[in-house]
Amino acid sequence: MHHQILSVNLHPPYPLHLGHGLLPHPERWLTPIAGGPVVIVTSPTVAQHHLATLQRGLDKRPTTVFTVADGEPAKTLATWQQLLLELAEHRVPRDATLITLGGGTLGDLGGFAAACYQRGIAWIQCPTTLLAQVDASIGGKVGVNLPAGKNLVGNFYQPKAVVIDVATLSTLPQREYRAGLAEVVKAALIYDAAFFEWIEQHVTALVNRDPSTLLNMIARACTIKATLVAQDEREHHARALLNLGHTFGHALEHLTGYTHYLHGEAVAIGLVLATHLSHRLLDLPVTAITRVQQLLTRLGLPTQLPPTLDPQALLASMRMDKKIRQQRLRFIVLERLGHAVITDQVNEADVLQCLLDALRCSLTHPECFSSVETPCTSQD
Amino acid sequence: MHHQILSVNLHPPYPLHLGHGLLPHPERWLTPIAGGPVVIVTSPTVAQHHLATLQRGLDKRPTTVFTVADGEPAKTLATWQQLLLELAEHRVPRDATLITLGGGTLGDLGGFAAACYQRGIAWIQCPTTLLAQVDASIGGKVGVNLPAGKNLVGNFYQPKAVVIDVATLSTLPQREYRAGLAEVVKAALIYDAAFFEWIEQHVTALVNRDPSTLLNMIARACTIKATLVAQDEREHHARALLNLGHTFGHALEHLTGYTHYLHGEAVAIGLVLATHLSHRLLDLPVTAITRVQQLLTRLGLPTQLPPTLDPQALLASMRMDKKIRQQRLRFIVLERLGHAVITDQVNEADVLQCLLDALRCSLTHPECFSSVETPCTSQD
Repeated sequence: MHHQILSVNLHPPYPLHLGHGLLPHPERWLTPIAGGPVVIVTSPTVAQHHLATLQRGLDKRPTTVFTVADGEPAKTLATWQQLLLELAEHRVPRDATLITLGGGTLGDLGGFAAACYQRGIAWIQCPTTLLAQVDASIGGKVGVNLPAGKNLVGNFYQPKAVVIDVATLSTLPQREYRAGLAEVVKAALIYDAAFFEWIEQHVTALVNRDPSTLLNMIARACTIKATLVAQDEREHHARALLNLGHTFGHALEHLTGYTHYLHGEAVAIGLVLATHLSHRLLDLPVTAITRVQQLLTRLGLPTQLPPTLDPQALLASMRMDKKIRQQRLRFIVLERLGHAVITDQVNEADVLQCLLDALRCSLTHPECFSSVETPCTSQD
Repeated sequence: MHHQILSVNLHPPYPLHLGHGLLPHPERWLTPIAGGPVVIVTSPTVAQHHLATLQRGLDKRPTTVFTVADGEPAKTLATWQQLLLELAEHRVPRDATLITLGGGTLGDLGGFAAACYQRGIAWIQCPTTLLAQVDASIGGKVGVNLPAGKNLVGNFYQPKAVVIDVATLSTLPQREYRAGLAEVVKAALIYDAAFFEWIEQHVTALVNRDPSTLLNMIARACTIKATLVAQDEREHHARALLNLGHTFGHALEHLTGYTHYLHGEAVAIGLVLATHLSHRLLDLPVTAITRVQQLLTRLGLPTQLPPTLDPQALLASMRMDKKIRQQRLRFIVLERLGHAVITDQVNEADVLQCLLDALRCSLTHPECFSSVETPCTSQD
C-alpha cells in the first residue's frame, strides 16, 4: 500500500497522509492522535460508498455516526446547529475526535462543528472528492453560508490530520472528478511551471484516474497549497494567489444561480479569463493562453463563457462580492505560466474588454456552451 | 484621568486598558487598532447607562449599534445567529471592529459573533460589570449555551483590546457588584496571599466602590488571571486553578435552577466549601477557613449552603457536569491562602463530609439562607 506523509506547516503543524487504501487502516493515521471516542460526520452518498470501509478499521473503538444532507444546500447554520445539538445530546466528550468523511462542503460544515463544540475538539479530515483533496483539505477554512453570501460564518481551524485516500476517487462521478482537476491546473499556473508541463504530459493517465499518477499529482498540488498557506495563514498576500481565476469564477457561479456550473468548471472558465487579463496587463504571450485553454479542454473542462452572458452583469457581480468584504476589485494575474502575482490596479474597462474578447469566441462557437461535456476547442 | 495599560501575553498579546472615564475617549484605545467601521453590540440596560458615553467619542466614525436581550437567557445559538444575520444584512465588512459593551454574557455572545463573522473580525471588549472586568475579559473564552449544558458551543478567540472603565461600576446594582467581588477573592486565594490581606484591609473602601481602590483591586485581579491564562491558554493545568470554588458553585447553580444565586454568590459558597475540603485533604488550618468566610461575609456575600439542600444531589450534579466533559472529578484546593493546587485524587466520601459539615452550620442558622443580603456570620 502506498502511504506518504506530507507536513503542513501551520500553527500547529499537522500531517497530511496520502495513499491508496488508507481509510481501512486508521492505525496508520488515527492512533497516534487520539485516545477518546470517535465521531464520524458524513453524508448519505459518501456513506454508501466509503463508510463501511472506514468503520472496518475502527471496529475496536466506540464510534458514533452523524449524517448530514449531501451538497452545498446543506451548508447552513441550521444544519450546523442541528449537528451541534446532536453532539451534545449524545454527550460527546471533549476528548473525542471528529472525523469528516466527504467532499468540501461536508468538511467545511463538520470542521466548523468540531471548531465550536466545547470550544474545539480534535478533527481529522478525510476528503473524498478531488476538489476537497487538493483544495479544501489544506488551510483550515471552515464554515457555512448565509443567505447574504457564501462562507460568511466560520473559523480558521486546523485539523489534527488530513487523510487523502485516492481509492475514494474511483466512485466519483466523471463531471465532479474533472472539476477537481481545474484546481490542480490552477495550483500549477500559480507556482510551478514544471508541474504544468507534467500535467500536459499526463492527461491520458489523469483522465483514466491511474492511481500512481493521481498520487503524484495530488502530492504536488497539496504541496503548492500548503506552501502558500503556510506563508500566510489569514490570507493577506501569498494565500490570495490561490484565488487565480476565482474572481471571475465566483461571479459566474453567482450569475448562473450556482446550478449550471460546478465550482471547478466555473474556475476553469475563470482561469482562461485570467490569462486573457494577464495578456492585456502583463503581456502574457498568446501561446500561454492557448496552452491553458488546450489543457483544460483535454481534461474535459469548459473554457468559454455562455454566449448569452451579459458582461456588465458579470462585472457588477464581481463588484458586489468585493463590497461586502470591503476589498478593492483585486485580480490575480500571471507574469508567466507558473508565476502569479496580485494586482488591485485593474481598470474595469480592461476587465470588460477581456470578457468581450472571451464572448466573441463563444458567440462564434455557440456549441461550446451547449454542453460542459464537449467544451469549445477553438483557439481564436 | 487615570489610565494604565496591562499586557495580556496570549497569542497574539493584547493590551488591557484600565481607568476611570475611558469609554468617552476611544482615541486612547480604539484608534491605534482599527481604521474600518465600528459595530457596537450591547444590551438594553447597559445601553441606557453607557451607550451615549461611548458614542460621544466615536462621533466621527461610522457606527452601527446592535442590541441583544439582557442576561444569561439570551446566550443562545438563536440570539447569536440573529446577530450574525444582522451583521451580514448590514454588509458589515471584514475590516470592521466589533465592540461589545456589557457584562460577561454579552461579551461571550458578541465575542463569539466576532470570532465567526467572516471567519473572525477585530473585537474590542468593554466589560461593564465587575465580574466581567476581573474574570470574563481575560482568556478569550467566547460562546453560548445549549439546552444540554452551559458554554457547549464556542471558540477561544482573543480580543484586540480590553477596555475596563470603572466608571461603569457606579450604575451596577449592589448585589451584582458584590457577586463580582467573589471572583476577586478567588484570584487572591489562588495566587496572592498579600493581595488577600490587602482586600481584608480595604473592605470598607471596596464596599463603597472607591474608584482608586477599585482600580488597584482590578489591576491586581486581572494580573493574576492574565498570568495563569498566559501559562496555559487551553486549560490543561494552570488555567484550571481559576476553577477554585467552581465545581461546588456550578453544581449549586445547577441544582437551584440558575435562578436563586448569581454566579458570584454560588462561587462564594463554593470557596468556603473548597476551604473545608482543603482542611480535610491538605490540613489547611481552621483559621484560614474562618478568614475566608469572614472576608466574604464582610463583602456581603453568602457563605452557607441552603439548609434544605440534599448533599447527594449536589454530588450527583458535580459528577454529571464532569461526565459530559469527560473529565475526572477534579478539585482545586488550597495548600495555604494564596496557593492553590489541583487534585483529582478526591474521595467522594470526603466531598460528602464537607457538604455535611457545611450544612450543619446552615441547619443551626437557617437565617443564613433566608436572604443573600444578610448572610450567615457564624463561625462554627
